[in-house]
Amino acid sequence: MKFNSELENIRTYEAGKPIELVVREYGIEPKDIIKLASNENPYGCSPKVQEAVKRIVDRMSLYPDDSMYRLKEGLSRRFDVDENEIIIGAGSDQVIEFALHAKANAKSKVLINSITFAMYEIYARHVGAEVIRTDSRAHDLDEFYKLYLEYKPSIIFLCTPNNPTGESIDAASVREFIAKIDSDTLVIVDGAYMEYARYKDANKALMPKELIDEFENVLYLGTFSKAYGLGGMRIGYGIASREIIAALYKLRPPFNITTLSLEAACAALEDEEFVQNSIAKSFEEMDRYEVFAKEVGIGAIESYTNFVTLCLGDNYNSSEISQSLLKKGMIVRDLSGYGINAIRVTIGKPSENDRFFKLVRPLLNRK
Amino acid sequence: MKFNSELENIRTYEAGKPIELVVREYGIEPKDIIKLASNENPYGCSPKVQEAVKRIVDRMSLYPDDSMYRLKEGLSRRFDVDENEIIIGAGSDQVIEFALHAKANAKSKVLINSITFAMYEIYARHVGAEVIRTDSRAHDLDEFYKLYLEYKPSIIFLCTPNNPTGESIDAASVREFIAKIDSDTLVIVDGAYMEYARYKDANKALMPKELIDEFENVLYLGTFSKAYGLGGMRIGYGIASREIIAALYKLRPPFNITTLSLEAACAALEDEEFVQNSIAKSFEEMDRYEVFAKEVGIGAIESYTNFVTLCLGDNYNSSEISQSLLKKGMIVRDLSGYGINAIRVTIGKPSENDRFFKLVRPLLNRK
Repeated sequence: MKFNSELENIRTYEAGKPIELVVREYGIEPKDIIKLASNENPYGCSPKVQEAVKRIVDRMSLYPDDSMYRLKEGLSRRFDVDENEIIIGAGSDQVIEFALHAKANAKSKVLINSITFAMYEIYARHVGAEVIRTDSRAHDLDEFYKLYLEYKPSIIFLCTPNNPTGESIDAASVREFIAKIDSDTLVIVDGAYMEYARYKDANKALMPKELIDEFENVLYLGTFSKAYGLGGMRIGYGIASREIIAALYKLRPPFNITTLSLEAACAALEDEEFVQNSIAKSFEEMDRYEVFAKEVGIGAIESYTNFVTLCLGDNYNSSEISQSLLKKGMIVRDLSGYGINAIRVTIGKPSENDRFFKLVRPLLNRK
Repeated sequence: MKFNSELENIRTYEAGKPIELVVREYGIEPKDIIKLASNENPYGCSPKVQEAVKRIVDRMSLYPDDSMYRLKEGLSRRFDVDENEIIIGAGSDQVIEFALHAKANAKSKVLINSITFAMYEIYARHVGAEVIRTDSRAHDLDEFYKLYLEYKPSIIFLCTPNNPTGESIDAASVREFIAKIDSDTLVIVDGAYMEYARYKDANKALMPKELIDEFENVLYLGTFSKAYGLGGMRIGYGIASREIIAALYKLRPPFNITTLSLEAACAALEDEEFVQNSIAKSFEEMDRYEVFAKEVGIGAIESYTNFVTLCLGDNYNSSEISQSLLKKGMIVRDLSGYGINAIRVTIGKPSENDRFFKLVRPLLNRK
């Protein structure tokens, strides 16, 4: 059977290996496996969220409220934006998908950072758009602007803090940059890890309300998958002008968020203390990673997220290191596929980090 | 901001009104609202499914097993097909979306029944494909064949039993029809209500294994949203040749099924007794609708599903009737948007059906 030609150029996303797979492939007991590969919140989600979900398991048979009234109300309060300025996706991934399908096509270009979240390129290829990448590892907004002038992309992605490197752009620089971009170019600011950046450094904190009040061509993305501890429930959101939201809404499939996910997200918004506590603990533990990296003579990129990217230099190979760890039940993310010899490690609970240091230390002995 | 021109032609799906909305709009207490509008299983899902989900609420923070190993294994056993012949979607809707994006484009035609599931057309418009409809209300496979020869569509949809009419095609006729279609045309057999048809009449029962063993160009769709009582959890599946599944897989976003949904679906497959019991009860109650329709002098289309479509004839108007019912807290589906003067009513629990009869009877007094 013949399929559309775009399919030939699509590659699929390589996710962090799930615990279930390591159990099957390496015969390791689930209790002996630690996954520090997908930047999930190691403290899980709030017990109040768990209780809220348990209370409504008898409603799994009912289609979700497709207007997402309560969750939009919660987000609207949280971010001081109108409900018509919000769209909710099955993960912020899905909002990225809507944006690409709404704004880009086989004649468009999409400008992204050299190393960044893989889904931008994957969805760009879905619509046959050409992907232009910067050269520099961290977002260099001068380089972005140069490429913008040269290629006139229809979409520019700024991922801040950036996944998978953890770096963050100054909020003021982002605003200065967007001010120079014509209003028909969609600038997507992906703030999947923004809660962490905001906690660590106010200068990195981008507020969606400020962005959309100032710029009609910005789409801000947020998620419940990271700080809010709901990676398994697939809930993200986009905040933008009503015009942009209305366009994306046309591409939203009905019932894109499950009944239990909506409940979980609403409950999560009501326990901010839990979230802030886990962010605080994450940064406390991150200090240990920085100390460790110095000790063993490898690099650690300064991170504004709940993960740290360890650059292995010339002595070690990231694929070998992560494979060795995997066989011992420690799952981290090898970044060789992104073109850097580094591993990305989610900051876990203290005991999980202990175990990471213990397992990785003997592999880093060529100093 | 300018968007892709296809967006102008997209209309959005009008879902059955959720209870939450009726609460807000009409100020009716949730306990006084009965929703017979979305063909959910009125008996919900198995208590065993609810228990299974409750047991893992502490895993909501973890991304789902994106290989969906356990659920594929369960479906593979159930349908005696290989795991590579299965794709799982966020509702069978999502598999429809993959199919349209993989096989159709702005130059293609898609052939569907005159009255059928609205998402076929919606997704066809996403890719700019032209939709060709038959004239006859029930699937007339001779007419389908005539239009196939005339228009050479890239996709043909057969919805059996058909939503929103409840009619079902003989399995033998479906196979005879597909045998006449060239192998580069994708024939999608949507069996969202097949569990009901199979229970009522073996002649209507299409087995995915038989279909895909016989035809390389068939995609069979099933769902957990109806008989399995998991409408809120968004889980459907497609079964087809490895070649077709591999193509659809390229368009699948990572983590398209939530952690709790995967668990729920696996548990649901293990309690077939619950499902068969609710199907049996549904058909028992359907008899009452047929008796009622005769009594008040309206038509009832013979249904192989968990809903009945009541054709109101010249004396009544479906929009008025459903609006009157809505104000009393009874939600049914007005089919005027599908071009027929009819309402579609999900077969509820006995007490829910009692209430439907009680509320609708005074509105049908012009016999």
